[in-house]
Amino acid sequence: MEKKLIGIDLGGTTIKFGILTSSGEIQQKWSVETNIMDEGSHIVPDIIASINHHLALYKMDQSQFIGIGMGTPGTVDLEAGTVVGAYNLNWKTVQNIKDEIQAGTGIKFAVDNDANVAALGERWKGAGNNSDEVVFVTLGTGVGGGVISNGELLHGQGAAGEIGHINVQPNGYLCTCGGHGCLETYTSATGVVRIARDLAEEFAGESQLKTALDNGEEISSKDVFDLAKKDDVLALKVVDEVCYYLGYACANLAAITNPEFIVIGGGVSAAGEILLSKVEENFNKFAFPTVRTSTHLKLAELGNDAGLYGAASLALQFK
Amino acid sequence: MEKKLIGIDLGGTTIKFGILTSSGEIQQKWSVETNIMDEGSHIVPDIIASINHHLALYKMDQSQFIGIGMGTPGTVDLEAGTVVGAYNLNWKTVQNIKDEIQAGTGIKFAVDNDANVAALGERWKGAGNNSDEVVFVTLGTGVGGGVISNGELLHGQGAAGEIGHINVQPNGYLCTCGGHGCLETYTSATGVVRIARDLAEEFAGESQLKTALDNGEEISSKDVFDLAKKDDVLALKVVDEVCYYLGYACANLAAITNPEFIVIGGGVSAAGEILLSKVEENFNKFAFPTVRTSTHLKLAELGNDAGLYGAASLALQFK
Repeated sequence: MEKKLIGIDLGGTTIKFGILTSSGEIQQKWSVETNIMDEGSHIVPDIIASINHHLALYKMDQSQFIGIGMGTPGTVDLEAGTVVGAYNLNWKTVQNIKDEIQAGTGIKFAVDNDANVAALGERWKGAGNNSDEVVFVTLGTGVGGGVISNGELLHGQGAAGEIGHINVQPNGYLCTCGGHGCLETYTSATGVVRIARDLAEEFAGESQLKTALDNGEEISSKDVFDLAKKDDVLALKVVDEVCYYLGYACANLAAITNPEFIVIGGGVSAAGEILLSKVEENFNKFAFPTVRTSTHLKLAELGNDAGLYGAASLALQFK
Repeated sequence: MEKKLIGIDLGGTTIKFGILTSSGEIQQKWSVETNIMDEGSHIVPDIIASINHHLALYKMDQSQFIGIGMGTPGTVDLEAGTVVGAYNLNWKTVQNIKDEIQAGTGIKFAVDNDANVAALGERWKGAGNNSDEVVFVTLGTGVGGGVISNGELLHGQGAAGEIGHINVQPNGYLCTCGGHGCLETYTSATGVVRIARDLAEEFAGESQLKTALDNGEEISSKDVFDLAKKDDVLALKVVDEVCYYLGYACANLAAITNPEFIVIGGGVSAAGEILLSKVEENFNKFAFPTVRTSTHLKLAELGNDAGLYGAASLALQFK
């Protein structure tokens, strides 16, 4: 029987698991809550127990697996298989996860950070069409991403693919990183709302978005895009600004890496076609001519499963 | 006896050749004029004749070589070993240089574009310290470069490393590519002079640069930096603007690829320490914190020989 992969998507609230074929078909999927108590010291034992429990359940054993791959928050040392600084997991000290999980399951283990792993997932089974040249940009609470070139993730000195911290507006909005005008401050879910509040202040016309903001209602990035789709004038202005910055950043990304696809994912990308078409407009304005025709923008296709697919694909190195 | 490499740096005015050891020591060096007559149809035959002539001269034969590597202007098809669109060579149609040079010399041949090859050279024997993570930016008549990550040049869909066309000023200076505000329009040799002319117009104080420009004297990028080193107020303003844009672009390059070194070369970089220190200042302002400490800016070290070293290193793949 063909050997399988295990993918793990470790997040601050849940840990998702999948058993996949080596060609990337999900055959089993389950999840457990992330227990971040006691400095996150239960997380790795919980992962090991959950895998061993499910293998027993499915009457499988370690010899039937190529390996385990995992995506995690924090800063990853790929060689050592350690993670540090994953604050939403309460991991403050270096976690020796590779050795522990290999010992606890008897299966080979590889790890990378969650944004990189999602990039691998979209490349393998999603919008990236299994191309060797894919950039993934994820627009969530923050903005992250991963850059794949020559078929491999770029890591640089450990922080390559910090797409959210491409500077798109010198002296722009203050970012959590301490900089001003990072892409994340304009195109994350919170960035979209920030732009909405800013533009609302000086907006005088008729707008449902303006009314909601003036009434102190809580609005989300989704609300802004939904109103823009209904031609709310202020919401359209906000969307234009968001897409300007994202298109500008994608053009600069493409001048450097010229990927076949730039895949846009994360919560904000659920806005769909309105986002994509306006980002493309700005991309075309700023991109170098040969890059404009050879790099294509696409919406992500895997949603929350990108991490699971990508994590599993990490284990293909053990094949 | 250890086998050798041949490097060729093909330019619009001269073709430089070198015989190198496999560890990158230049043992012989010569050059011939580039004959661009008749749609550049003499270039490849001249290269073959010059190699065969020199091997005979040095009493060497093809069995003593690992391979030949060459850097060329134009758009290169790496697999096919063809070049097209090298206008300063008069090559308007596809040139099948790999097959011809292999047949004419009996030695294996690899080719890449000149900016990529210079990046390989600085990485191998220059400021790149043989790191697997190096970005090279060359400031000449135009601005070009090469990105090396995971030990390999990035090509993307063929146009990766178009560093001169990173947009640093939306709606800025018109670029030859049709865009507005590309890095090249501010930090190439011609860009520096352009900024000087622009700032001179609204400059009122005492300045030798201002006087020279007002007198219609022809000034060069080198003149501007030389005057800045003598504390000419206008020249310092120009240098500040050049270094602002270059530092900003380097910070964004590093957010994406986080190399160990960004190596700055080309004619403009001859300005030296004044350029480097001011670029670093702006880099530090715009770079993501972990990138700021892990990516280091350096001046190129090989000058015009970068292309020769890098070209030779292309042939190491045949080892």
